[in-house]
Amino acid sequence: MVESMVEHEIQIRVRYSETDAMGFLHHGSYVNYFENGRIELNRALGGDYRAVEEGGLFLVVVKLEIRYASPARFDDLLTLTTQVASISPAKFMHEYVLKRDNTLIATAKTTLACVDRSGSIRRIPDDVRKLVDAGDE
Amino acid sequence: MVESMVEHEIQIRVRYSETDAMGFLHHGSYVNYFENGRIELNRALGGDYRAVEEGGLFLVVVKLEIRYASPARFDDLLTLTTQVASISPAKFMHEYVLKRDNTLIATAKTTLACVDRSGSIRRIPDDVRKLVDAGDE
Amino acid sequence: MVESMVEHEIQIRVRYSETDAMGFLHHGSYVNYFENGRIELNRALGGDYRAVEEGGLFLVVVKLEIRYASPARFDDLLTLTTQVASISPAKFMHEYVLKRDNTLIATAKTTLACVDRSGSIRRIPDDVRKLVDAGDE
Amino acid sequence: MVESMVEHEIQIRVRYSETDAMGFLHHGSYVNYFENGRIELNRALGGDYRAVEEGGLFLVVVKLEIRYASPARFDDLLTLTTQVASISPAKFMHEYVLKRDNTLIATAKTTLACVDRSGSIRRIPDDVRKLVDAGDE
Repeated sequence: MVESMVEHEIQIRVRYSETDAMGFLHHGSYVNYFENGRIELNRALGGDYRAVEEGGLFLVVVKLEIRYASPARFDDLLTLTTQVASISPAKFMHEYVLKRDNTLIATAKTTLACVDRSGSIRRIPDDVRKLVDAGDE
Repeated sequence: MVESMVEHEIQIRVRYSETDAMGFLHHGSYVNYFENGRIELNRALGGDYRAVEEGGLFLVVVKLEIRYASPARFDDLLTLTTQVASISPAKFMHEYVLKRDNTLIATAKTTLACVDRSGSIRRIPDDVRKLVDAGDE
Repeated sequence: MVESMVEHEIQIRVRYSETDAMGFLHHGSYVNYFENGRIELNRALGGDYRAVEEGGLFLVVVKLEIRYASPARFDDLLTLTTQVASISPAKFMHEYVLKRDNTLIATAKTTLACVDRSGSIRRIPDDVRKLVDAGDE
Repeated sequence: MVESMVEHEIQIRVRYSETDAMGFLHHGSYVNYFENGRIELNRALGGDYRAVEEGGLFLVVVKLEIRYASPARFDDLLTLTTQVASISPAKFMHEYVLKRDNTLIATAKTTLACVDRSGSIRRIPDDVRKLVDAGDE
């Protein structure tokens, strides 16, 4: 398990379709934001997750933890910081901080495992790992 | 093009995650309800859409039209009637009526085409067509 | 009913959560894209839809029509052009063209009505109408 | 903090719109299932969450943890068991087990807080608490 400080920031505008009758961003919609954060972090490092899948490997979420601090509303412009917290031969740990200006909206952690089409655990491909190691120097 | 009167009714409970900040069922969530209506109609006729896909054919929506009559709210119990309106060698036309008791919520029409993995138009398989013809007697 | 040529273009990246088991952008996810197109068109004209709602008026979709031309996939970068096609005292008609480079993905039309909290039809507020008229010169 | 063993079981059919390009139920869709589990548990106990909200109080998720064990697919019929794990003056803790027959799909935990329209923490209303206590005898 190697610690890492590779991180990336994106802006996300809350969509109307992501809100709920309480008037806030629905607590399930956050999960999709964090997924976007991971994908854009990977892109920023020079990776291409679509190509990984076309090669028959998938990074699947095996654990997810979200702490909701303050509600967000339709049309809020949020800032999501995604960080690779650590990496092991078959797992990635990411951490997320979602804010609206200086207001903390949520923090989260995910663990991803690398699997093949049959669902068997596989080593994370070297070119995917290398991105994180290189980004970390 | 053959007319058909095969129809099927299901009940759908509006989920919290399907509502929006206006306090109503989001207009995009209806699309998923109509998809459920088609799948359950097919199941009621003895079909198995998952098996069709595993055989390499897909029924894809090529046209969708929805008219929204009255809003629905979280926890409303709605009744959806799905009907095969007509069928041609490569296309299915469905019609939908969504109600809460006697209140009309929405009506809709879809056109589905049969395609293979490459996206080329294909004849609807006979065993799929037969379900509709048999159900119609 | 006045014709209008006010239009606005946005870019949308297809999210993983918006795809389906067929491997494509789910046909229901398009509805949310068109909603974003309307909101960003309104913002580009100087409007603020959240403020309209806070004032007790809502623009609700009463009719929606989508024609799906080609599938889109995860990570595709799409261009959505949204246009106010016409406007009447209580209704807006929008038209949409969704493309990936030169490939047409879908076209759509929506009709929006202005209602108050009770759901009664109301005149579209002058400051909302004015945006479209001004943008049209 | 009082321990509780009140639990309720529902069946959920995986919708096509909830799957993703990997061919599985998207990891974000689980969140909506657990929300349904809570709502149906409350209904089974004689509660009415819509009425709680109409009274100006909201139960909001402040913490969520999911462990994904095996993938689910379109059309799978899943069984979700929802349990009130514990209850404090302002918080509910729920635990969830999602299965397809004997295969474990996921387990989860949520913490809900009771807030008013302004977002301030409030005591859980007695009639809501009473449901859980009564169900527990």
